[in-house]
Amino acid sequence: MTVRFGLLGAGRIGRVHAKAITGDAKAQLVAVSDAMPAAAQAIADQYGCGIRTIEAIETSKDIDAVVICTPTDTHADLIERFAHAGKAIFCEKPIDLNVDRVRACMKVVADTKSKLMVGFNRRFDPHFMAVRAAIDAGKIGAVEMVTITSRDPGAPPPAYIKVSGGIFRDMTIHDFDMARFLLGEDITTVYATGSVLVDPEIGKLGDFDSASVVLTTATGKQCMISNSRRATYGYDQRIEVHGSKGMIAAENQRPISIELANADGYTRPPLHDFFMTRYTEAYAAEIAAFIAVVAGGASPSPSGADGLAALVLAEAALQSVREGRAIAV
Amino acid sequence: MTVRFGLLGAGRIGRVHAKAITGDAKAQLVAVSDAMPAAAQAIADQYGCGIRTIEAIETSKDIDAVVICTPTDTHADLIERFAHAGKAIFCEKPIDLNVDRVRACMKVVADTKSKLMVGFNRRFDPHFMAVRAAIDAGKIGAVEMVTITSRDPGAPPPAYIKVSGGIFRDMTIHDFDMARFLLGEDITTVYATGSVLVDPEIGKLGDFDSASVVLTTATGKQCMISNSRRATYGYDQRIEVHGSKGMIAAENQRPISIELANADGYTRPPLHDFFMTRYTEAYAAEIAAFIAVVAGGASPSPSGADGLAALVLAEAALQSVREGRAIAV
Amino acid sequence: MTVRFGLLGAGRIGRVHAKAITGDAKAQLVAVSDAMPAAAQAIADQYGCGIRTIEAIETSKDIDAVVICTPTDTHADLIERFAHAGKAIFCEKPIDLNVDRVRACMKVVADTKSKLMVGFNRRFDPHFMAVRAAIDAGKIGAVEMVTITSRDPGAPPPAYIKVSGGIFRDMTIHDFDMARFLLGEDITTVYATGSVLVDPEIGKLGDFDSASVVLTTATGKQCMISNSRRATYGYDQRIEVHGSKGMIAAENQRPISIELANADGYTRPPLHDFFMTRYTEAYAAEIAAFIAVVAGGASPSPSGADGLAALVLAEAALQSVREGRAIAV
Amino acid sequence: MTVRFGLLGAGRIGRVHAKAITGDAKAQLVAVSDAMPAAAQAIADQYGCGIRTIEAIETSKDIDAVVICTPTDTHADLIERFAHAGKAIFCEKPIDLNVDRVRACMKVVADTKSKLMVGFNRRFDPHFMAVRAAIDAGKIGAVEMVTITSRDPGAPPPAYIKVSGGIFRDMTIHDFDMARFLLGEDITTVYATGSVLVDPEIGKLGDFDSASVVLTTATGKQCMISNSRRATYGYDQRIEVHGSKGMIAAENQRPISIELANADGYTRPPLHDFFMTRYTEAYAAEIAAFIAVVAGGASPSPSGADGLAALVLAEAALQSVREGRAIAV
Repeated sequence: MTVRFGLLGAGRIGRVHAKAITGDAKAQLVAVSDAMPAAAQAIADQYGCGIRTIEAIETSKDIDAVVICTPTDTHADLIERFAHAGKAIFCEKPIDLNVDRVRACMKVVADTKSKLMVGFNRRFDPHFMAVRAAIDAGKIGAVEMVTITSRDPGAPPPAYIKVSGGIFRDMTIHDFDMARFLLGEDITTVYATGSVLVDPEIGKLGDFDSASVVLTTATGKQCMISNSRRATYGYDQRIEVHGSKGMIAAENQRPISIELANADGYTRPPLHDFFMTRYTEAYAAEIAAFIAVVAGGASPSPSGADGLAALVLAEAALQSVREGRAIAV
Repeated sequence: MTVRFGLLGAGRIGRVHAKAITGDAKAQLVAVSDAMPAAAQAIADQYGCGIRTIEAIETSKDIDAVVICTPTDTHADLIERFAHAGKAIFCEKPIDLNVDRVRACMKVVADTKSKLMVGFNRRFDPHFMAVRAAIDAGKIGAVEMVTITSRDPGAPPPAYIKVSGGIFRDMTIHDFDMARFLLGEDITTVYATGSVLVDPEIGKLGDFDSASVVLTTATGKQCMISNSRRATYGYDQRIEVHGSKGMIAAENQRPISIELANADGYTRPPLHDFFMTRYTEAYAAEIAAFIAVVAGGASPSPSGADGLAALVLAEAALQSVREGRAIAV
Repeated sequence: MTVRFGLLGAGRIGRVHAKAITGDAKAQLVAVSDAMPAAAQAIADQYGCGIRTIEAIETSKDIDAVVICTPTDTHADLIERFAHAGKAIFCEKPIDLNVDRVRACMKVVADTKSKLMVGFNRRFDPHFMAVRAAIDAGKIGAVEMVTITSRDPGAPPPAYIKVSGGIFRDMTIHDFDMARFLLGEDITTVYATGSVLVDPEIGKLGDFDSASVVLTTATGKQCMISNSRRATYGYDQRIEVHGSKGMIAAENQRPISIELANADGYTRPPLHDFFMTRYTEAYAAEIAAFIAVVAGGASPSPSGADGLAALVLAEAALQSVREGRAIAV
Repeated sequence: MTVRFGLLGAGRIGRVHAKAITGDAKAQLVAVSDAMPAAAQAIADQYGCGIRTIEAIETSKDIDAVVICTPTDTHADLIERFAHAGKAIFCEKPIDLNVDRVRACMKVVADTKSKLMVGFNRRFDPHFMAVRAAIDAGKIGAVEMVTITSRDPGAPPPAYIKVSGGIFRDMTIHDFDMARFLLGEDITTVYATGSVLVDPEIGKLGDFDSASVVLTTATGKQCMISNSRRATYGYDQRIEVHGSKGMIAAENQRPISIELANADGYTRPPLHDFFMTRYTEAYAAEIAAFIAVVAGGASPSPSGADGLAALVLAEAALQSVREGRAIAV
């Protein structure tokens, strides 16, 4: 079957998903919706799809699934509406910044037996998938220690920080999900430390721009996460998993891989400077996985429960910073 | 303007170009032609274009440019026909395996003032382009020595070898073009040695599967090329340029960049195993460059003259192997 | 001046220092002492030095400095004796496993105005020194986050674990010192988690074999340490320092740097499998630094205070594991 | 047995060998000789050996072996004298710059049944040895193509060029020996091109500073050598061997292996800037190998015949440049 899509939200990430949908032979982009007419029009023009209101999409018979790329504070409501409307739902992370709101939303999804997939795109990065595959294939024996380095090229503006939910809910949440993806065991304690080293404005808003996190599981597996809102050398995204028989690591990606050698040494260009260019393949692959869920009978993964679990870890991290102790989850 | 394309040849490389054309916002694929109806139909179905005969494309008012992906022995004739028809022409390499035939074809292109671009895709690889840009920016001073390593994952079947024109015209020709692209100066002598180390069948056909080539220019710049028809570790494509102030190199590309460490050491996966996955970006970029040529006023590059120059070097290499001496070109 | 040495302890590390002393043109190995006559004799034979009792070395007029390589529980006593004897002292880490005992020992050193240098050899590794030099030269701006990966090739036997003082005092102590060396600011809190993932025997002795540690400073700088008693791929010793303007890292060292490529991928040999081969240059350089301290007027560094500071951090780490919270130091 | 050495020549390379001899437990440096008294005295002072004339060393009963580090034009004469004197001989390369002179010298060595080892130090580099060991272990199948990159940090002064015998006899000779070491088969043809790109003074002396060489064997194995007298990035010494089942390569060595990352990219320091620091381990290992030859019954390797074979290749290369064709050897 061809999965027929409605796209909710025509902003930056909406355009990424529009490209992924129209580039997939098993999918069709039927309509786009956005509060800004010009944004919707741009996507409609480029990909030859219609423009409809959210209400119209809700009742469209020719739409099987929606991709929610609207502002975060609308996610939970839209999930509930489209769950009731019987559509399969792909929602950008996070479902909501409030754990209770997420739980309520999950209940609606469960009650309506809706298919909900959450946009933790990094699980679909081919390099990270290969790391996970190596673990599953027993290449490193039992997983013992996961190390995640995750640093943004530059700090977002204060306006973004204000609505972001803070570094743990906005940025580390991806790393919490990756930790869960790689540890293969429930996380039981969270310790976090947060500092303001990059931009004092972030501190004034009560947030942090630099964080170190330690996670542990019931059997003593450990995970360390290093976050910074600014890395002059680009978008630093590394994972490394140490196990009883070996180690597997995914190195950083570069858009251009050349090396210049002279009296100053050997120099390679910086990393990607933007998450969208770094994770281009991951965005296409996650939409393909969602299409497979809608078209076939597979369970959505990462699911709403995965979204909730990562948010719970983010909350615990925040509490840990405040209390200076490890928080049991 | 939107450049309207006719695609001649719906085989493997034809499909690559069909994808590049339809993925470019400044281009439209109007029609495809192929002697095998099923092949043409497959492209028509996937990209929603028409199917026409070559004759029909020649006279189509709604087609500005053609991409020639038919068998090599038809290239020169088709170039001449579409030159007379007033279409812009992108032709896969080589124009012909015979130097005189290429020269005659070039004359028609010149007489008709046609735009002809030749498919030396590697010039458009982003990593090789960055090497060239570094040279142009003076990063390594004066170019002195170019080293090109170019090895295929595996030898082609004898049937292909028979019509290929031999290793120098078929495989090294890309490296000859790259040498010209990077040396920035006319090549004046060619020395080559060829051996049969991979597959005795290749030797029975009078061809070689392993070759080392040395090129020199009038001012003494040097280029070494290493070719093999088989590399167990994948499609080995490296260039390195040593100059008076430094060196710039493009390393091999890997589809997956992870590293596994254990008691046996640190292991990264093999290289790409196919030229089409290795040069995906290059194929899209060369079509984009051709579109810019057709839409704007730029001169085609690489041009027919570039195609001819590389073929002349291939002929000289063959003569060099036979005579055991450097051949002046 | 030539610095004349007495060597206390002719075991494994004693032999390392004997080689460093005799290889340094500014030093002379006068005598060695060991409770095991054969061990002392081996060094005497190899390097042509005398054998004396500890008492004799204490009163030897022809000895300026001693290197203490005896068992840990004798270090503090020997430091005090040789401080009273007016000798310059180089002592292998740790001074003692008990913080109070170290403090008392430091007092004697201070009262006698003795020169005491502690054997944190890693400060003298040329690669780590280059990292520190890059920081001092402002290459990465303000230090923000230090990441230390420190994993042994294999776990020591239970007999060693019993007298080691535990993973934090025995193994992490090197990383605590490196953190202090690189952070450039006093550490104010320590959080640690410890697990038994490698060898249950270690757990039975009340110790851990896997640990993750987070350190913070007053201004919010952060340091993460990852320790394991077993890494199949060799002696894993990496440091990375992220700052406001960039990052500087020291990668692992390999005894042999070749790469094999085949259908299984690209494989480099494992790392060093032993701390003595990994830190060969560091051992020679630290003795050279000590010689400069004795011969010239420089202050010893790392000093007894540095030894104490690292031990305090180890104690705090142990407390942190027990209490599940960050400990202020 | 302890091998007792006389060292002929106390210059730069003589000091390297003095250090290697005195650092080897199986060797003793008995005496040094040099036309410059101060040079001999410096070694005598540092290592506690005697100073003797060449004549005295010839007749010294307490000397088993000599190491010849005198100027090149004295090598053949000294080899003959010490062959007649019954000493084992280690001679720095080359034996002589003239092939006939070398042949005559070899005859004396053969007639006197003397042990002669030639100083092609690179065969003893641990990384290159590991490459050879991998080949011998069948890791890459049959050797097919060897690539040697060998570039000096900077051109020597004209005075050195004058007595050097030219780039092929002085510099490429090491690469010829390495090619023979790795190809495992006699070289049958030599093609070379030489240019003056670095220093016009070198051209005025009739020599080249940049060279590309292709060697072939009877079965069609190929070797390419790239030489330059100047590389701004340091002493560039790479070898790579491609075979039927894979490839093995030895990468460049760096004295300091750190990496700085910032907005300009990722930068590692330059390579070694001097052959003596690059090949420190190789110099010690070749002396150890020579000691084993003298003390045991092993045949010297590389032998005088190896020295001759490399010189013959150098002569052929020079002829090839002049005649523009491949020379059979």
